[in-house]
Amino acid sequence: AKIIDGKALAESIRAKLRDEVTDLSENNGGFIPHLAIIQVGDREDSSLYVRQKQQAALKIGMKFTHHKLEATVSQAELLSVVHALNDDYRVHGILVQLPLPDGMDEKLVTEAIDYHKDVDGFHSLNIGLLAKRDHEPLFEPCTPKGCIELLRHAGVDLNGKKAVVVGRSNIVGMPLAHLLQGENATVTVCHSRTQNLEDIVRTADILVTAIGRPQMVKGSWLKPGVVIIDVGTNPIPDSTKKSGIRWVGDVDFESASQIASAITPVPGGVGPMTVTMLMYNTVLSAKRSLKGYRRPTQYLKLDLKTPVPSDIDIAMAQKPKPIKIVAEELGLFPSEFELYGPTKAKVNLTVLDRLKHRQDANYVVITGITPTPLGEGKSTTCIGLVQALGANLKKVAFACVRQPSQGPTFGIKGGAAGGGYSQVIPMDEFNLHLTGDNHAVTAANNLLAAAIDARMFHEATTPNDETLFNRLVPAKKGVRKFSDIMIRRLQRLGIKETDPDTLTPEEKRRFARLDINPETITWQRVMDTNDRFLRKIMVGMGPQEKGRTRETGFDIAVASEIMAVLALTTDLKDMRERLGRMVVASNMAGEPVTADDLGVGGALTVLMKDAIKPNLMQTLEGTPVFVHAGPFANIAHGNSSILADRIALKLAGTSGLADDDEPGYVVTEAGFGADIGMEKFFDIKCRTSGLVPNAVVLVATVKALKMHGGGPEVVAGKPISDVYSQEDVGLVAKGCANLAKHVQNARKFGISVVVAINKFSSDTQAELDTVKRAAIEAGASAAVVTDHWARGGAGALDLAKAVVDVCNTSKREGGASFKYLYDVNLPIVDKIETIAKEMYGADGVELSDVAKSKIQLYTSQGFDKLPICMAKTHLSLSHDPKLKGVPMGFTVPVRDIRASVGAGFLYPLLGEMQTMPGLPTRPCFYDVDLDPETGRVSGLF
Amino acid sequence: AKIIDGKALAESIRAKLRDEVTDLSENNGGFIPHLAIIQVGDREDSSLYVRQKQQAALKIGMKFTHHKLEATVSQAELLSVVHALNDDYRVHGILVQLPLPDGMDEKLVTEAIDYHKDVDGFHSLNIGLLAKRDHEPLFEPCTPKGCIELLRHAGVDLNGKKAVVVGRSNIVGMPLAHLLQGENATVTVCHSRTQNLEDIVRTADILVTAIGRPQMVKGSWLKPGVVIIDVGTNPIPDSTKKSGIRWVGDVDFESASQIASAITPVPGGVGPMTVTMLMYNTVLSAKRSLKGYRRPTQYLKLDLKTPVPSDIDIAMAQKPKPIKIVAEELGLFPSEFELYGPTKAKVNLTVLDRLKHRQDANYVVITGITPTPLGEGKSTTCIGLVQALGANLKKVAFACVRQPSQGPTFGIKGGAAGGGYSQVIPMDEFNLHLTGDNHAVTAANNLLAAAIDARMFHEATTPNDETLFNRLVPAKKGVRKFSDIMIRRLQRLGIKETDPDTLTPEEKRRFARLDINPETITWQRVMDTNDRFLRKIMVGMGPQEKGRTRETGFDIAVASEIMAVLALTTDLKDMRERLGRMVVASNMAGEPVTADDLGVGGALTVLMKDAIKPNLMQTLEGTPVFVHAGPFANIAHGNSSILADRIALKLAGTSGLADDDEPGYVVTEAGFGADIGMEKFFDIKCRTSGLVPNAVVLVATVKALKMHGGGPEVVAGKPISDVYSQEDVGLVAKGCANLAKHVQNARKFGISVVVAINKFSSDTQAELDTVKRAAIEAGASAAVVTDHWARGGAGALDLAKAVVDVCNTSKREGGASFKYLYDVNLPIVDKIETIAKEMYGADGVELSDVAKSKIQLYTSQGFDKLPICMAKTHLSLSHDPKLKGVPMGFTVPVRDIRASVGAGFLYPLLGEMQTMPGLPTRPCFYDVDLDPETGRVSGLF
Repeated sequence: AKIIDGKALAESIRAKLRDEVTDLSENNGGFIPHLAIIQVGDREDSSLYVRQKQQAALKIGMKFTHHKLEATVSQAELLSVVHALNDDYRVHGILVQLPLPDGMDEKLVTEAIDYHKDVDGFHSLNIGLLAKRDHEPLFEPCTPKGCIELLRHAGVDLNGKKAVVVGRSNIVGMPLAHLLQGENATVTVCHSRTQNLEDIVRTADILVTAIGRPQMVKGSWLKPGVVIIDVGTNPIPDSTKKSGIRWVGDVDFESASQIASAITPVPGGVGPMTVTMLMYNTVLSAKRSLKGYRRPTQYLKLDLKTPVPSDIDIAMAQKPKPIKIVAEELGLFPSEFELYGPTKAKVNLTVLDRLKHRQDANYVVITGITPTPLGEGKSTTCIGLVQALGANLKKVAFACVRQPSQGPTFGIKGGAAGGGYSQVIPMDEFNLHLTGDNHAVTAANNLLAAAIDARMFHEATTPNDETLFNRLVPAKKGVRKFSDIMIRRLQRLGIKETDPDTLTPEEKRRFARLDINPETITWQRVMDTNDRFLRKIMVGMGPQEKGRTRETGFDIAVASEIMAVLALTTDLKDMRERLGRMVVASNMAGEPVTADDLGVGGALTVLMKDAIKPNLMQTLEGTPVFVHAGPFANIAHGNSSILADRIALKLAGTSGLADDDEPGYVVTEAGFGADIGMEKFFDIKCRTSGLVPNAVVLVATVKALKMHGGGPEVVAGKPISDVYSQEDVGLVAKGCANLAKHVQNARKFGISVVVAINKFSSDTQAELDTVKRAAIEAGASAAVVTDHWARGGAGALDLAKAVVDVCNTSKREGGASFKYLYDVNLPIVDKIETIAKEMYGADGVELSDVAKSKIQLYTSQGFDKLPICMAKTHLSLSHDPKLKGVPMGFTVPVRDIRASVGAGFLYPLLGEMQTMPGLPTRPCFYDVDLDPETGRVSGLF
Repeated sequence: AKIIDGKALAESIRAKLRDEVTDLSENNGGFIPHLAIIQVGDREDSSLYVRQKQQAALKIGMKFTHHKLEATVSQAELLSVVHALNDDYRVHGILVQLPLPDGMDEKLVTEAIDYHKDVDGFHSLNIGLLAKRDHEPLFEPCTPKGCIELLRHAGVDLNGKKAVVVGRSNIVGMPLAHLLQGENATVTVCHSRTQNLEDIVRTADILVTAIGRPQMVKGSWLKPGVVIIDVGTNPIPDSTKKSGIRWVGDVDFESASQIASAITPVPGGVGPMTVTMLMYNTVLSAKRSLKGYRRPTQYLKLDLKTPVPSDIDIAMAQKPKPIKIVAEELGLFPSEFELYGPTKAKVNLTVLDRLKHRQDANYVVITGITPTPLGEGKSTTCIGLVQALGANLKKVAFACVRQPSQGPTFGIKGGAAGGGYSQVIPMDEFNLHLTGDNHAVTAANNLLAAAIDARMFHEATTPNDETLFNRLVPAKKGVRKFSDIMIRRLQRLGIKETDPDTLTPEEKRRFARLDINPETITWQRVMDTNDRFLRKIMVGMGPQEKGRTRETGFDIAVASEIMAVLALTTDLKDMRERLGRMVVASNMAGEPVTADDLGVGGALTVLMKDAIKPNLMQTLEGTPVFVHAGPFANIAHGNSSILADRIALKLAGTSGLADDDEPGYVVTEAGFGADIGMEKFFDIKCRTSGLVPNAVVLVATVKALKMHGGGPEVVAGKPISDVYSQEDVGLVAKGCANLAKHVQNARKFGISVVVAINKFSSDTQAELDTVKRAAIEAGASAAVVTDHWARGGAGALDLAKAVVDVCNTSKREGGASFKYLYDVNLPIVDKIETIAKEMYGADGVELSDVAKSKIQLYTSQGFDKLPICMAKTHLSLSHDPKLKGVPMGFTVPVRDIRASVGAGFLYPLLGEMQTMPGLPTRPCFYDVDLDPETGRVSGLF
């Protein structure tokens, strides 16, 4: 008979795998397939098998880890090791070496392995898929797969042939029968209870034995020409060998090879193939991991109605997918997202590490013309665009939006979930606690505020420096010790000693006394409620505070600098540093006092440790959305978080594998008009993140342009002028100057612009055409009419196509044309002037005395290299909200300048900025309730 | 051949099922097995099959629902129907009628069915388990199972026999081959590609055909004596029939029955069995659902060290199980819990409905002697006890504990996660945001506070009644309409009109003017931060508030009445009512003004809709814990929530099925000493819930009893007297009077007491024996020494056994001995007096003038039937914190009485109650930080 040489075949497969592993690593930044084996106890045979697998893995260039546990380990501990390996994205294959010690439940342990990493192929789900016709398991079990490879290699045709498998084990016989049947053989499975085994074996065209009985099957049992795969490996005594034994199969090779047409030897047949197939499966798993298990998105169908129902009715009528499914569609691993109920999840930052080799998706920012009370629909366009890119163009498309404050939700009709058939769902979750990030900001902000007042109180009531020092650094069991955060302060003070007892009295004083100048405190308390009576308050009026009252106030929570930090931070370490260096006041000597001086930077970080993870939700059409951070757009930069954008860019990105998808799209929204939100997006957010955008989408409406063209004022509660619903091409054309200015502004950053004209039913074709022409004349790459509010993604299809075109061009150029508006190293006043002239069209700026002295202060404190975050009205290109269109010939007054040192910007105040809204006489909470039977929320918008 | 009569067998099985369904319903409060079939489109054959199943189900007495979808439905919509049925615990079996319309992914849909409800047995996980030896699927596919039942019924021995299955479909051939092999037959599977089919068929002792070829297998193909199961059902033309066709099998019955020893007819063979097995599987699934899928708890092993490391070191060294697994061990369905990250979950109240038929677990309350600065270890004992009941005695044992405030976490060393080897983990999550419930309380509390000030402002600045009314009820598109919550107010005012335009001017005024008397406002703002400067503040100092300043203050968040409501509420509807009726002030006429008068009761409920769900965590040994609500123990009742206890009592309870577990244990902790926490537990919490406890565990320590016996004062920061570490039996004996008084107090409620003596290493045997004797003499059922701090559950084993004994006795008696201390219908003063005399040992009470006028007010407002929640120092049985032991001859002064009408109690103030803690000079936040690499929190305790 022909000898089927398993050793040679195994060698050649391993050589191919070695090449593949080298390629993978070279093309993907050192990526290495990784097999992990768990061994419990010390069985000698198990140790031998583990060693064989280890040698094979290392030889191929794979990573191998051996997790050896004591035989006395508890089942829960073993399971926890399995779970840890499941959760480790760097591990691609997990194998538990069987048998386990007595008393352990092998089934439970095998089933605990993530079936994505079940390279043994023994998970019941893999077996179930193997057993079913037209289904495919993620992995085929190694030994059976090795047998099939040997048959294939030997050129054996299995179609319609009679195959007999002797042995019905879960490891070989059963899965092999399925594989043979999958090759269209007619399979009979024999076992210990089989009657007339010899007769049945004699019917076999292909015989596979896996029973562990040495040389049981004789030549006389065989049909001439049979092909034999002998899986058995049995020791028999042999005095000629040094070991006293030799290895034989289940088949009597000598007699069988006379009758068979082909046969595997023992050893050197199936044996080497098993380990090889394990390596094959591990490399297969590694490649899948590299691509990220992304699954086709199940889009949700819209049931479009005319007239368009209310936002809440549309939102409540659509049942969202379980967010777990959205996460799985994105290829997120189970350890990479944390569910917060069924419709929200937090995504862990670790995913950035796993996907670091990927090419980013296309990066698109949505902005708008100068806002009017009529509403332009930026958020709605953002959601409509991703719905179009996703559900219509079948691209992976992410929206990154800001989390709204809870204050307006219950105050005056608010919310930012989009509208009509372009919304984030569930909109009640979106507008309420979400996953508690705003609450975390509130808690952290207020802990710092409490620390300021308490510290001033204790310093004031402890006049003796030594006493104060001793209270700050008390002896524990006789030993005084600085905490880590105190050592940071010592370093800032230039004190090198770290043993509290060796400080000089002067050093002790300097360390212990923050000497905060109460007049300079900029840190306010916050609350996520519209509570106008907290705008200005007197604190410390209780008798225990001994008359140390102080005037201060509350801001709405999203106005906290901590919210701006959250939006701009790039990782946990960076957040820790930013929170620690936030400046809350100056001391009596004019030096900045920071959160870390107050000893609270670490605690703030702990309070924010979950908030740093972006929140995953979905659109009405089932495409993914990140909701993360919502800093104020005037005193802060008004953009959602860098981390959400970064993660989305990777999740919608693409790997270096040839068969992977094209890069997808990430659409992020900037607050207010382009003069504020977009400018800050580029100059603050992109400068911090280093990310380069590929396109600007600028949203305009005919109505709003009419107002910029000189249309009458719109006042809440009064009927809107007919001008806005009747054709007036002249007015529109005049208003287009505002649009043109914003287009030109965007072009100053070197980024191409697509103008989205958000259509209302009263707009006429002539009006729409006017806007289109003006946009193109101003330098936009395209101008398209959208109707996503009424039609969802389908209504933004043209916009999506235009965005795809612009992005393709930008990607080809590698984003080289992008530039910031100013150099951060310029003097503060120059930076302010550049923005005022270039973006607003001002003649110049005029600084108040306060502003001038602040420039001096911040320059002396070393904060002059920070970018500028202008606090300006959004209702005009100028500082005067009443001036519509394109104001000219004005000078921008700078009343004051403040610093958000932790967030990393200075914010000049160009007018009164309201930072705590109030409740009207009839707040919208009057309508809000829930159905106690269903728990369904009603009346929210 | 013998005819194997499927129809008769099916009938007899269905009759048995009918009886079983009747029994289930009778023994479990109307419980009914429920089969749901999803049909997409209108195929006639599918409709026929669905009808057959429906008829069978209804005849057996099962519930049947038919979910018929349009053929045009999207895949996502179909999946969402599947998910909804998965999530509905009242549905026990789900079947998607195949085939689906073109373009739909049958695999995806089949796999989407929760395999616990996969009564078809087609889920890959069920198939995988079916394929494996020694594994058991949850369900065997119906037709194959029917075939096996027929063979069994016909008395056919399969062991070692040659079985040939013709057909390899996923529905019949493949699974049947596994079932036959499981019966030890030697199985050959033939199919369309099989060569020499006839020859192979001739080898069969048992032949099963499932190919859909009419009469293909002839008698001449058969081995004499073969047993034939003919699954085929094929129409052939027959002009003698009205329909023009008749039904035949894959086997030519006429010729085959001559050769075979037994054969199934077509029709009347396999056909009726398929539907019957579907019914069988559905009943099987229903029974499992009734028992609740509880799985054995995987306990976590403790790695005990001496000396005992710090709490955080112990907690961080233990890796918690994924909370999903804890939930699954409890038998929670996937739709019944919502993960909040990997270690916390919220449990939905719907579980109470599913488990309503269950018998409650044993209910144990933990309380203590009068607290001392030395700490008695109530929380630690609570956790140690459940660890012992669970990990040592293998009972289902739940701890229900309070959520701590975040304020003390960062202020003075706090936290309530237990200690040593008896803790809730992860302790950092426990002590931080948890799932945001405290933040929800804060948000709701402060929305109400903002609403009060804003309303007073708008009423004051709108002197014209008509204008105010019109602002409250504005015309929308010309129509004025009251919101639901306004109609509630109209009803309270006795105004029957519901059309705003028909109200008289006087009615409009009454409706629109709340006329709040600012002097009577009891509603404070809250913050979960120790911010002493907010204790007393002046609000409204901003220019926009026009000089309408007001003195008010902030409490710590857990002191909010909303927290007390959360702890005492029994369902969503009840919470809505309680939040709406909270009284915030009186109007100028002395009538109560409620949250619903302010229009905000619905919004508050919406803010609290997730907080109402208890939070699931675990102990160091992996047993379940509910963490839910943490109301103040003085101005409120200081107990965790009723809902957590109720759900735990059901989850640890037992069904009526004969093979179910014994009822488990729920251990809940009451705040402060037994005179406060336990009294409120019985008189407020149990009175509201209607639950009857089975045992009191009273915690004492030798050290604390020494202090009650007259030991020296303990002052923070100063060394502790040697008295507390050296033997002094006399002092202990004297202090035992305090213990005895608490034991006697507990006995007044008719509940048995187990005294737990929480041992310290310096305690001597003589001292411990003294305490034991005193406890028994005072009427305790048992007194045991515990060492759980150092040894975990093992250290509380004796305590656990004593608790089991007491509970067994109590359960036998049916809890009949339990009684409240007072009748709520007594006058307010009588109730106060009863508590003071019976619990505190006072001679009587003395009411201040304020208290007397409050009694008048509350009686006139109809709040006099509420139970009493005494606000008394916890440091003494009396009102004077300095009096230790058992004070005598004192009269309790009542300074004031306040009402928490929503929570449902009056709270007399017996002293100054601090409701906003402060930060010390060196708060513990100085030590808190996290490792930016691992994200691990350090320095928290």
